[in-house]
Amino acid sequence: MQNSDNNIYIYGRNPVKEALENEPERIEKIFVRQSVKDRDVQTIFDLSSNNRIPVSHVPGSKLYELVGSVNDQGIVALMSAIEYHEFGPWLDSLDLSTYPGILLLDELEDPHNVGAILRTAAAAGIDAVLVPKHRQAPINATVFKTSAGTAGRIPIVRVGNLNQSILKLKDAGFWIGGLEQEGETVLWDLEVDRPLAFVIGSEGSGIREKTLEHCDYTFAIPMRNRVESLNASVSAALMSYEWRRKKK
Amino acid sequence: MQNSDNNIYIYGRNPVKEALENEPERIEKIFVRQSVKDRDVQTIFDLSSNNRIPVSHVPGSKLYELVGSVNDQGIVALMSAIEYHEFGPWLDSLDLSTYPGILLLDELEDPHNVGAILRTAAAAGIDAVLVPKHRQAPINATVFKTSAGTAGRIPIVRVGNLNQSILKLKDAGFWIGGLEQEGETVLWDLEVDRPLAFVIGSEGSGIREKTLEHCDYTFAIPMRNRVESLNASVSAALMSYEWRRKKK
Repeated sequence: MQNSDNNIYIYGRNPVKEALENEPERIEKIFVRQSVKDRDVQTIFDLSSNNRIPVSHVPGSKLYELVGSVNDQGIVALMSAIEYHEFGPWLDSLDLSTYPGILLLDELEDPHNVGAILRTAAAAGIDAVLVPKHRQAPINATVFKTSAGTAGRIPIVRVGNLNQSILKLKDAGFWIGGLEQEGETVLWDLEVDRPLAFVIGSEGSGIREKTLEHCDYTFAIPMRNRVESLNASVSAALMSYEWRRKKK
Repeated sequence: MQNSDNNIYIYGRNPVKEALENEPERIEKIFVRQSVKDRDVQTIFDLSSNNRIPVSHVPGSKLYELVGSVNDQGIVALMSAIEYHEFGPWLDSLDLSTYPGILLLDELEDPHNVGAILRTAAAAGIDAVLVPKHRQAPINATVFKTSAGTAGRIPIVRVGNLNQSILKLKDAGFWIGGLEQEGETVLWDLEVDRPLAFVIGSEGSGIREKTLEHCDYTFAIPMRNRVESLNASVSAALMSYEWRRKKK
């Protein structure tokens, strides 16, 4: 049911600490720069020890090799890969009678946006996030870090072709909504008494024409002061939480 | 009533084009790298010409001098400074009978967050954003760019001491709400039948203890999947739009 990818590294004291606290089972190893003093990272050592995670003291050049030129603060953790779900088995396992809500990312290339969307979607209790395999930021260390370590807490379903998947979602009973500046429905009028899929377009170019044609309806976030668009992660957050508010 | 600061520069084709379209009156001059071809930036030349804004063709080193090592795409615009409002006159000019809603930023140091908050606040029609003079990201070119050029469309009020200003806001009839993970009220139960001020804490440390003591109430955004916090700009967006939804 799940498909393993390459391992990923996360870095920086807070992200590693948060991963140790929340999903130690996904951490395979921790690398600490030799010059880092024990007392600076005592919590990380304690948590690693409690969870039987090996800690390796290495020169700074080794960290550079692992994560490149980033502000790693002397700490890197090797995580087992995010487990992607495959579309077919995921759809088969879904209980449609609960009226699930999912997000479809339409070629979002900025990993910071993708990370922020996963974090908010997890917080809002969105049921899954579908990401295309191509022309889409991979779920890498940057995404994981921007998601504040929460990227692994929500099913991420990889699809080869977003439009094909939309057709199958429709067959299964999903209503497909596209967020558009000129959308016909106002966000607040959203009805949640059916399985819903929300398509989020990229910040630069919005939802692609062909994908838009597959949407059952479009909806808009009202905007004042001549603001023409919101950041993709803000739009996704408003949508996810409007869905959550109505479902509560 | 307004206080002029240093000028700011914005850079990149889309930000400059958007500023030319939306607030040409704030652009004092445009700098174009000599090697940039006319046809690449014809729209920018046309808009500049229509608005009688001088265009100066300069070597790349001049752009570097103005904005440093950024992806300027060969285009930099000198903008007149964001006009800060002063607290006293701003408060005096406010029509409290309309029950305004404002945001108070409590030492947010990440300019990307501040820019994203200004953009969403402008879109939601928030009446003003109060920013402390110290330990707070200044409203600079990065903020302006992250706000997608919208930072100038909402009053930005600078205050010397946030807590002093909160006391004065309370005297004027504002209710002060602090966003907190353990907040006593759920965001969705917010009532908007009075002037409201929302305090947004920094992502790392939240609202400062002393500021929290001045809040009339605290409220929380419900979160699932053990997510402990949201990005500050996402929290501010959910808050601003919940206020807008209730006001509509």
